Amino acid sequence: MANLKSKNVVWHPGMVTQADREAITGHKSCTIWMTGLPASGKSTLAVALEKALWERDIHAFVLDGDNVRHGLNKDLGFSPEDRNENIRRIGEVAKLFTTAGVINVTAFISPYRADRDRVRAIMGPGEFIETFVACSLDECERRDPKGHYKKARAGEIAEFTGVSAPYEAPEKAEITVHTDRESEAACIQTILGYLEQKGYVARRE
Amino acid sequence: MANLKSKNVVWHPGMVTQADREAITGHKSCTIWMTGLPASGKSTLAVALEKALWERDIHAFVLDGDNVRHGLNKDLGFSPEDRNENIRRIGEVAKLFTTAGVINVTAFISPYRADRDRVRAIMGPGEFIETFVACSLDECERRDPKGHYKKARAGEIAEFTGVSAPYEAPEKAEITVHTDRESEAACIQTILGYLEQKGYVARRE
Repeated sequence: MANLKSKNVVWHPGMVTQADREAITGHKSCTIWMTGLPASGKSTLAVALEKALWERDIHAFVLDGDNVRHGLNKDLGFSPEDRNENIRRIGEVAKLFTTAGVINVTAFISPYRADRDRVRAIMGPGEFIETFVACSLDECERRDPKGHYKKARAGEIAEFTGVSAPYEAPEKAEITVHTDRESEAACIQTILGYLEQKGYVARRE
Repeated sequence: MANLKSKNVVWHPGMVTQADREAITGHKSCTIWMTGLPASGKSTLAVALEKALWERDIHAFVLDGDNVRHGLNKDLGFSPEDRNENIRRIGEVAKLFTTAGVINVTAFISPYRADRDRVRAIMGPGEFIETFVACSLDECERRDPKGHYKKARAGEIAEFTGVSAPYEAPEKAEITVHTDRESEAACIQTILGYLEQKGYVARRE
């Protein structure tokens, strides 16, 4: 148990297994981990996917970068160390939701490949579904719904991914969607199709 | 938005409301926050309650002190500051689970009244159900399933609640159960009775 600061803690097993949960909810649980540039459409896709899943009576929940930074991670900024800790904590929370039987949808820039791979490593086989929300930097910067790219170019936001901080695109994403050339509905269909094909959720009649 | 280190983050609302979730799951969500001395029976009761809830098709999940310290909070120890941050993070995670439509059962010593009140304050009305797992110190020390009291008395564990660190019992707990004079089944029935009476879950026919 590397890096465990607190001693004398032992794992207390539950009596409800993940298989029990799946039998009752009628679907497998997993984490759809969306990664992409700022303004690539992660949060928009995540809430649309959550809605599409609930319409199928599937228990889904979005963990959103901005939302989590108002609560759990409000003590963290955007330095490489803080981004690392941000993703570490979110990965642990995503794991808890997945264990709980929920299809967890996360929408975080999560720019570093190593951070994403660390989250993958703490999950069980098939539980981490890396979903690359691909969009050209030009198009993200054109959208700029919050005006962040503009501020970053003006030097008013430091360490902004895509401008003054790196983004490392996935090399082995389970799913890739292209928000600069596919509709939202098409992107959602790609993700739902993957979940159906791999048996996480039932095929829709 | 006090104490928010990261600037330029805005709340991204979802399209699935908590009411939508309740309509689909058939129950309200909340956090059953168990607090009590080490070895008072919190984790045992929590997993028994989780099982009893799943048997009613209620989506429940246990956040356990020991378990969380192996993951999310593995960077934290037992100093007052670390205990404070431990409970802060767990409170935020409990809030996420409650928002997600899950009946969340937490089993943490959570010895400081102020820490518990801070968690209550971030939750919506009726979402935080403080549950005092009462047990005399003598009885906890007699049980000592992990040998921690013995080690604490021998000075091998520092800042151990009940021995060398304080425990502040709740003054306004919604539920109190006495594990030193009630059976596990009776304690569970008290909690389920509260949830039924207050309309969180349907009465069992």
